[in-house]
Amino acid sequence: MTRAIFYHAGCPVCTDAEQMVLNYLDRSKVELEIVNFATDRSRIAEAEHLGVKSVPALVLDGTVYHINFGAGLDDVKKG
Amino acid sequence: MTRAIFYHAGCPVCTDAEQMVLNYLDRSKVELEIVNFATDRSRIAEAEHLGVKSVPALVLDGTVYHINFGAGLDDVKKG
Repeated sequence: MTRAIFYHAGCPVCTDAEQMVLNYLDRSKVELEIVNFATDRSRIAEAEHLGVKSVPALVLDGTVYHINFGAGLDDVKKG
Repeated sequence: MTRAIFYHAGCPVCTDAEQMVLNYLDRSKVELEIVNFATDRSRIAEAEHLGVKSVPALVLDGTVYHINFGAGLDDVKKG
């Protein structure tokens, strides 16, 4: 299984991308974790370390895919 | 089946996103078409009409997901 983490911050653009990922990512190949910074701020540093610059973002097999643009990570960090 | 079109222009960022889409989109739910503007310029206007601003982009069930940034559509149009 390939590990995937979808990072978001609860914004409308995030929620839309989250639904797409939840509905259409092939779950027979991918083990998906959803992280919402609005409720789990402790994961922000990890995401930044992985190369996440904005949300929503999908990290799949170590590669970061920024999907549209909801908010920059700097703004997310400011809360 | 949900219809999906992945638009790209052959750039490295595009190719990487294309592999992700090809490998991990759930093909039991999604009918996927790949369009490369480098070889099929006639589809640029259609993509623009759908709301594609840059490539690579995935249009899924009518919603545009810009995945990272390879090139703006204006640059693609210039050839």
